[in-house]
Amino acid sequence: MPKPIAGPEIERLIQLLARLPGLGPRSARRAALQLVKRREQLLRPLAEAMTVAAEEVRLCSNCGNIDTRDPCTICTDPNRDTAVVIVVEDVSDLWALERAKALNARYHVLGGVLSPLDGVGPDDLTVARLVERVAEGGIEELVIAVNATVEGQTTAHYIIDQLADLPVRITRLAHGVPVGGELDYLDEGTLLAAMRTRTRI
Amino acid sequence: MPKPIAGPEIERLIQLLARLPGLGPRSARRAALQLVKRREQLLRPLAEAMTVAAEEVRLCSNCGNIDTRDPCTICTDPNRDTAVVIVVEDVSDLWALERAKALNARYHVLGGVLSPLDGVGPDDLTVARLVERVAEGGIEELVIAVNATVEGQTTAHYIIDQLADLPVRITRLAHGVPVGGELDYLDEGTLLAAMRTRTRI
Ligand SMILES: [Zn+2]
Ligand SMILES: [Zn+2]
Repeated sequence: MPKPIAGPEIERLIQLLARLPGLGPRSARRAALQLVKRREQLLRPLAEAMTVAAEEVRLCSNCGNIDTRDPCTICTDPNRDTAVVIVVEDVSDLWALERAKALNARYHVLGGVLSPLDGVGPDDLTVARLVERVAEGGIEELVIAVNATVEGQTTAHYIIDQLADLPVRITRLAHGVPVGGELDYLDEGTLLAAMRTRTRI
Repeated sequence: MPKPIAGPEIERLIQLLARLPGLGPRSARRAALQLVKRREQLLRPLAEAMTVAAEEVRLCSNCGNIDTRDPCTICTDPNRDTAVVIVVEDVSDLWALERAKALNARYHVLGGVLSPLDGVGPDDLTVARLVERVAEGGIEELVIAVNATVEGQTTAHYIIDQLADLPVRITRLAHGVPVGGELDYLDEGTLLAAMRTRTRI
């Protein structure tokens, strides 16, 4: 923008909004406009919610989840199976599994995957804390729910190695055809896995 | 979400983000996660920018634009042609024309269009202030740049009626084929208008 058309305060708001995933420069302008038009219903509440989040959100020291309390809401939920822990790469995966109501258990958020090219080693992830949790006892099953990528699988193998001496059952999510998925869009590895683990109907 | 997976503070942040145009519930979750992960670089600056905007943004009492100053940045810009005023429905149209560098002039933002069905009458728009501005003198041309909709055209005619006794030239944007537009996707009215106002190459 060569010449300012709104004050620098609004331009700054637009620039920051444009850095949110899902909003490009154009939709950031629309969002900024909507915000200033709906000052009391949207702009002020959102500013306050963000300020609260900036002050109060932290990583759970037990599981790596993000919450305003430590230990987090999930780690302190008395209605979850404490014997099963689902290992995920990221909080977004935790949220996805919770949305799916996949399993009423606890989680361990790794905070990424091993990636030597990106300089991500074991110390950058929460693997040591995971081993500690298992060693403390009470965990019977660990569901490794990392992404089915090369880095994800490498990370899974590293975790399994670290847990070799501990008495815990390690499982992983099944491979197969996505619900509603069309066969001819799937890669051969998925089709092969789905065929091998076919179930009787 | 039947059971809370993050504190109510984060759920509230997600809910408010989901009300921004361009963000659905899923991308609001992604955005919230990105925000709390990038607390110092993104969450805190955005919270502050929103707080500033909520405190300081107002409507320009001259032209209806949104800015942190009144009169706004455009109304006080000494390098614009003050004899031409572009009449638009909404601030987003002003921004679009500015992005296109359409004309280095001033604006008048109506704040909507006449729409009896939605209960929007002349008093809900800034038409009276527009007539006042023209009556004050110094404006030679008014470019009516409202949308080419029924309501937009009704509003344009109402404005023209109100200005009937004032010595101002009233123009509108040309109809025609959008740059890069394909003829067989255009409606017949546009094609007819483009043909009638064809220019020599
Ligand atoms: Zn936790
Ligand atoms: Zn103004």
